[in-house]
Amino acid sequence: MEATNNQTVSIFPLGNPGPTEWFSGEVHVQTLVAPEQMEGLYTVGQVTFSPCGRTNWHTHPIGQVLLVTEGKGWYQERGKPAQVLTQGTTVAIPKDVEHWHGASADSNMVHIAISNITDGSSVTWMTPVTDEEYAEVNKNN
Amino acid sequence: MEATNNQTVSIFPLGNPGPTEWFSGEVHVQTLVAPEQMEGLYTVGQVTFSPCGRTNWHTHPIGQVLLVTEGKGWYQERGKPAQVLTQGTTVAIPKDVEHWHGASADSNMVHIAISNITDGSSVTWMTPVTDEEYAEVNKNN
Repeated sequence: MEATNNQTVSIFPLGNPGPTEWFSGEVHVQTLVAPEQMEGLYTVGQVTFSPCGRTNWHTHPIGQVLLVTEGKGWYQERGKPAQVLTQGTTVAIPKDVEHWHGASADSNMVHIAISNITDGSSVTWMTPVTDEEYAEVNKNN
Repeated sequence: MEATNNQTVSIFPLGNPGPTEWFSGEVHVQTLVAPEQMEGLYTVGQVTFSPCGRTNWHTHPIGQVLLVTEGKGWYQERGKPAQVLTQGTTVAIPKDVEHWHGASADSNMVHIAISNITDGSSVTWMTPVTDEEYAEVNKNN
């Protein structure tokens, strides 16, 4: 791992910009394992969120694992306080629970995501996390 | 990521020594996601191999993914040349293919492993990689 003064080099390539209909702000996605490489069980990717970058609200039909490798960010389930994500945080997201994840307002955040697939789908996308919802999470931190 | 002069700090805790009946040399295993956290689909762990540390020969009944996060090592399928593993290497190991993985003789190697489970099992352990087999892989590298 090359690193100097907390400037880090990600383990995997940055990848491509995430679709704007699923993400807010600057988000990059790199596929690491495609479904067809692992019998259609799941896909594995690295997601890099720049400060304020975040997913829309969404659910997973059969769950997802997040492994945080860099930075600081948030994981929030609908109606609950946000949980802070830092390097080494692991999140096992239950199926059918509405949530979002992303960077904090003052840091990037990088995670590996293992997205389980059932009936050909790994995610159901919903509405964006509004600026008001996002500011509420960041205001005390 | 804290790092100085290529001395790295692993993303996740080092964990506990790997069982000597499954590994040779110094190997540490840290569970990141237990099967019961993800509907019994797989387990996720970090494995840290010190130089010369390696798995026994083994197979996976429904495959495994390796995501290399640090160092240098080897992945070898029975009867084939070894493939070098470095930071950022991803390996999708097919089901029922006999293989081993581990550090090189002159470097540690750290990987995340996603071990798929079927019928309650994720691995079938076999014989150790002999010193002769291991030396053969390292001699030209």
